[in-house]
Amino acid sequence: MTAADLKAGALIAVDWGTSNFRATLLAADGAVIDRLQAPKGILHVERDGFPAVLTELLSPWLPHLPGVPVLMAGMIGSADGLVEVPYLACPASLDDIADGLVRVTPLGEANPAYIVPGLRGQSVADSPDVMRGEEIQILGALDPDARGEQILCLPGTHAKWVRLNGRTVQSFSTCMTGDAYSALRQHTILRRFAAGGEHDAKAFRRGLERVRRPGGLMHHLFSARTEVLLGDMLPETASAYLSGLLIGDEVRAMVEAIQPQSDVTLIGDPRLTVLYAEALERHGQSSRSIDGDQAVTHGLYQLATRAGLPQSN
Amino acid sequence: MTAADLKAGALIAVDWGTSNFRATLLAADGAVIDRLQAPKGILHVERDGFPAVLTELLSPWLPHLPGVPVLMAGMIGSADGLVEVPYLACPASLDDIADGLVRVTPLGEANPAYIVPGLRGQSVADSPDVMRGEEIQILGALDPDARGEQILCLPGTHAKWVRLNGRTVQSFSTCMTGDAYSALRQHTILRRFAAGGEHDAKAFRRGLERVRRPGGLMHHLFSARTEVLLGDMLPETASAYLSGLLIGDEVRAMVEAIQPQSDVTLIGDPRLTVLYAEALERHGQSSRSIDGDQAVTHGLYQLATRAGLPQSN
Repeated sequence: MTAADLKAGALIAVDWGTSNFRATLLAADGAVIDRLQAPKGILHVERDGFPAVLTELLSPWLPHLPGVPVLMAGMIGSADGLVEVPYLACPASLDDIADGLVRVTPLGEANPAYIVPGLRGQSVADSPDVMRGEEIQILGALDPDARGEQILCLPGTHAKWVRLNGRTVQSFSTCMTGDAYSALRQHTILRRFAAGGEHDAKAFRRGLERVRRPGGLMHHLFSARTEVLLGDMLPETASAYLSGLLIGDEVRAMVEAIQPQSDVTLIGDPRLTVLYAEALERHGQSSRSIDGDQAVTHGLYQLATRAGLPQSN
Repeated sequence: MTAADLKAGALIAVDWGTSNFRATLLAADGAVIDRLQAPKGILHVERDGFPAVLTELLSPWLPHLPGVPVLMAGMIGSADGLVEVPYLACPASLDDIADGLVRVTPLGEANPAYIVPGLRGQSVADSPDVMRGEEIQILGALDPDARGEQILCLPGTHAKWVRLNGRTVQSFSTCMTGDAYSALRQHTILRRFAAGGEHDAKAFRRGLERVRRPGGLMHHLFSARTEVLLGDMLPETASAYLSGLLIGDEVRAMVEAIQPQSDVTLIGDPRLTVLYAEALERHGQSSRSIDGDQAVTHGLYQLATRAGLPQSN
């Protein structure tokens, strides 16, 4: 990457989540110029450390990009981030997000910076629910002239199931499946074999099937241990089986609660969306998948454009 | 405890589980003379360390009790214990357990020692399932002339739901609810508030109710976070709420799968059985509770008597 290439940058789009920091440098027309990423999620930054960490992480770019705006989404806008940005309440139009941007000054006067608000709504259980960052993926993935009802699922540490009407988020439900998967495979009796292991398609499918039987999730989880103990399952396939149990239970409950009337749109890491697509298929539910990283970049660019942010040097 | 008191000991009954070691010294008539316990479960003992640890833990008693037999139940008979003792296959009569005792020699010739076999069977999901130690609690809790079908539940790290016919264990299902509870409250996003906190009856009940709504367990778990985040729940009550969600989901699934035709018999720590009794009541299911520690001692004594073990000095 030459200095001349970098100087074409018109927007720094940042996805700053709990575990990771990802930044994309975009040209005025939305073309991707460069990318940076670091395992520097907000949980790994001291309360007062955000300006210094941001300056450091963007140091390959900033000297070449005076005045270029930085647009940030994700947990950086939470109470544990740089500044707590109020949630927009659902039903909320994705087109209203631009109006909720909050100006911040972690980079002083050199580069203006903004944080995207998250969304707050009610879930299928009529529980309060929240998201920060996923709204940008939805924005980036959505057809500009979307109409009617659409169900989206964004798998991850805290998976989101979202009901959209046109470009309006009606409601959404979080499932902490990914978070629970890590905790259960590393910190319960299953840790002896499920802590390691590669993905295994057959064991995953076996988990999807098992969880459809009676007994409940807490019972099915224990079968990972007994099947290995009694020689019915190879220990190295137990983590894939566990993944099948958890994703299978999540998808079963959500399909039952939401009853999608058309394809579910999966947005996320392709390694995850392929698993959810299979689980959905077992429930007679078709789906289509969209890459999550591309959706974030595209969503931030759209939002910045709407807010009149990108500027050439 | 005087040496003269100890000398009346006729049986050392040991419950050696994953996390804890508990020993009871019994007179020939079954009266309790003394108790010992230590946080020295089999996970805290090196593979070759069992004889030395047992000698050390029983050192207050052994010099006074040459020849007195030691009867051990629990995970000490697993592949990670002193010796792997084969499971009895269900349906198995509790009266057959005595025939499966395995003689071991961790104390050399000074004191004969025996390990109780566990049980192996099929669960409500037709999964293979196993228990080690709970069979002794069932034996100790059971009416000697029990007839007909009876459903028992033994809450704990790995709760067991057992279908008995007379004195025969027909089948049983393990739910790793307690194990998952520890992992989820300490190693997920819930850890910030759910890792501590006292029991709170109202929050527990709120969890029992919440889990009856649509959305599935992985969704309901996240509501512990959002309710606290949005000020709808005091952070210090989140662990009790989480407990209500998990126990509520377990009880719902098990009552649905087993459909008990009469009172469920709860055997365990009274602080836990009272929670399960409440969860069962919410599902219109009556129960009665029996203290688990007393059941273990009583069960080991019965078993020893049947095997002709207790002997006076």
